[in-house]
Amino acid sequence: MFGRHCARILKARYCSTPWSSSGHCWVPRDISAAICKMLLPHVLSCILFLCKVPLDPLLLVADEYAVLADRLQRTIVAELPKLAPNAELFFKMLVKERRFQPSVLLLMEKAMDVPTPTQASRHCADVSPIRIFSGQQCIPEIAEMSNIYNFVRHNMLDDADTRYQASFLNLFLGTKLSVLVGDFLLSKILVILASTKNSEVQSILSKVVEHLVMGEAMEITSSSEQLCSIAHYLEMVYYKKASLLANSCKAIAILAGKDEEITIMASNYGRYLGYAYHLMDDILDIAGISASSGNLSSDIASRMFGAPMLFAIEEFPELRRVVDCRFKNPSELEFGLECLRKSGGMQRTRELATKYAGLALEAIETFPRTNNNKDAEVSRQVLVELARKII
Amino acid sequence: MFGRHCARILKARYCSTPWSSSGHCWVPRDISAAICKMLLPHVLSCILFLCKVPLDPLLLVADEYAVLADRLQRTIVAELPKLAPNAELFFKMLVKERRFQPSVLLLMEKAMDVPTPTQASRHCADVSPIRIFSGQQCIPEIAEMSNIYNFVRHNMLDDADTRYQASFLNLFLGTKLSVLVGDFLLSKILVILASTKNSEVQSILSKVVEHLVMGEAMEITSSSEQLCSIAHYLEMVYYKKASLLANSCKAIAILAGKDEEITIMASNYGRYLGYAYHLMDDILDIAGISASSGNLSSDIASRMFGAPMLFAIEEFPELRRVVDCRFKNPSELEFGLECLRKSGGMQRTRELATKYAGLALEAIETFPRTNNNKDAEVSRQVLVELARKII
Repeated sequence: MFGRHCARILKARYCSTPWSSSGHCWVPRDISAAICKMLLPHVLSCILFLCKVPLDPLLLVADEYAVLADRLQRTIVAELPKLAPNAELFFKMLVKERRFQPSVLLLMEKAMDVPTPTQASRHCADVSPIRIFSGQQCIPEIAEMSNIYNFVRHNMLDDADTRYQASFLNLFLGTKLSVLVGDFLLSKILVILASTKNSEVQSILSKVVEHLVMGEAMEITSSSEQLCSIAHYLEMVYYKKASLLANSCKAIAILAGKDEEITIMASNYGRYLGYAYHLMDDILDIAGISASSGNLSSDIASRMFGAPMLFAIEEFPELRRVVDCRFKNPSELEFGLECLRKSGGMQRTRELATKYAGLALEAIETFPRTNNNKDAEVSRQVLVELARKII
Repeated sequence: MFGRHCARILKARYCSTPWSSSGHCWVPRDISAAICKMLLPHVLSCILFLCKVPLDPLLLVADEYAVLADRLQRTIVAELPKLAPNAELFFKMLVKERRFQPSVLLLMEKAMDVPTPTQASRHCADVSPIRIFSGQQCIPEIAEMSNIYNFVRHNMLDDADTRYQASFLNLFLGTKLSVLVGDFLLSKILVILASTKNSEVQSILSKVVEHLVMGEAMEITSSSEQLCSIAHYLEMVYYKKASLLANSCKAIAILAGKDEEITIMASNYGRYLGYAYHLMDDILDIAGISASSGNLSSDIASRMFGAPMLFAIEEFPELRRVVDCRFKNPSELEFGLECLRKSGGMQRTRELATKYAGLALEAIETFPRTNNNKDAEVSRQVLVELARKII
């Protein structure tokens, strides 16, 4: 797999020019790609490890993710044909939200070092690797659906009952389709979960969906006091983001037949990486707003409402007033950003993200190494790299 | 159980006057109730069977239903506290929608003649009746949740993007809570299903939820042509109503360990009773509108859009125009009702409901009789009575 991964990088870097049609071609593109695939992976494997070339860690599972995303997209459009005219735009909007969590789960699956059918039949007669694989494979799919559900609902509920312009998503989907896409995804998760035929995994993953809904409910049922508390915010982050990664990693470990210790490590890795990723996302969100033209929408108000702002409120209690009103005009937005700049909100958020990333790193570094399965080892390394990147 | 049922009827008929406080009391109310419970059930059992006294068939499971409904109500309010101020009104609005399906399932459970723990241990060592009972009991609960989900979503989607005044439900719940109550119920169904630990039942009941969502999707994604076709309407009725009863009855039979023949009968009974009940409901809906003041709302437009109107369109194609516009003013509503009166729409709907009720009756009458378990036999009789009442 790592070989294929390197081949993909090489191909992307050196084979993107259509030599075959440029007239300067000395090796046809197909043949050069074949050479990359056959000869270079092992050389590159060493070079990359030695030189620590910075890579997009998720590239390793880019193909698997593309297949999964495409299949899901086609299913949704086939069963909700009204989405078809805007489907491409809709799914493009989701790309950032969608890719991270399912890709981490695809990597976790590979890192589990589940024996291939031949190995399994050699070592243990009663294990059915085909069933294990199909069971595991459904988990990134459920994560992908949960992500889309989360995104659609968050946008819809954020727009409803506010005085802002509706988000782009709601404008082109409309209330009915927004509601139905969410319901459709929840019902499909139910069907997929029923097909796993593993009651422990079903129980764990049903919690994920319950948490997603509880997270949304917390946002609209919490008091103003609660909404300005960082502890309460982190609880919401757990329900809406970290629980998905934590419980899905746990389910993957269980389906791979791992012992309790590894299952707990996998779950901890997911939980802490989920927190760290979300907190870093909060920082990037604020940076995005600072650079924007101050054009107010429910989306901007929602992005302002992250960990940096909550830390800033602890230093500037007067921020509470504008936060409570959800930055209803550009001057309040400017005031909020000014306080944020003066405060240690960004720094404290970064420190918290680093702390969580450290805990994720600790969990994944204690994963047993596998010398026999290069795919598993490379995936483990990429999971380590993911946590390091955040630090 | 039939004894308790008769006691309940006696109590309702003869003990509702507070004799103990009227001064004309010759037996205190508690004692009279106790006598009813202890002495009269068997006498009444004979009298009722001989005289065919008309009863509310659902009364037999009224206590069980009340416990189930109350438990669910408290759970929803506890986890969505914003609903609390309007909870009583909200659940009152649902009473008509809610009671029928879970009560039928409670009766079906009883009719299954599952051995009590003592009987089981005597006859079959490997059956765990406690697990069977707890598994079966979750099914009416899931049906209750599905009903509430269906009701909340239908109201919400019916209001959205229409020019009518919002329904009362949406007015006091608001979009956010309407959406969240639905999501909350779907997530709880997922958790309950995961706890059944029976993959066949999970697979069957996950289909119910999938069908509910597909039914809603059909309503908003179908063409005008499709929406005016009775065949398409019956397909929607299956997804939104009949599937719930059909698949839940099937799941109850499976959990009770019944053979394939009885499982199919139970499923057929649920399916055809579901159709028949919904069609009769369509007739009652139209009757309700005829007597109303013609005050237009999305609710009235939705109630006009049933089987009688679709049959009427076959006779009066000019009705298509007002149906397409969803009766946007009182004169169109009057025109619609006038055409309906002249047409055979109501009669044809009644005939179709009778046909379905006949099929349900056929299914339940071929159920094996149980002489050893009076509760089961009485429940079966009540299920027969339910189908007969529709005819």
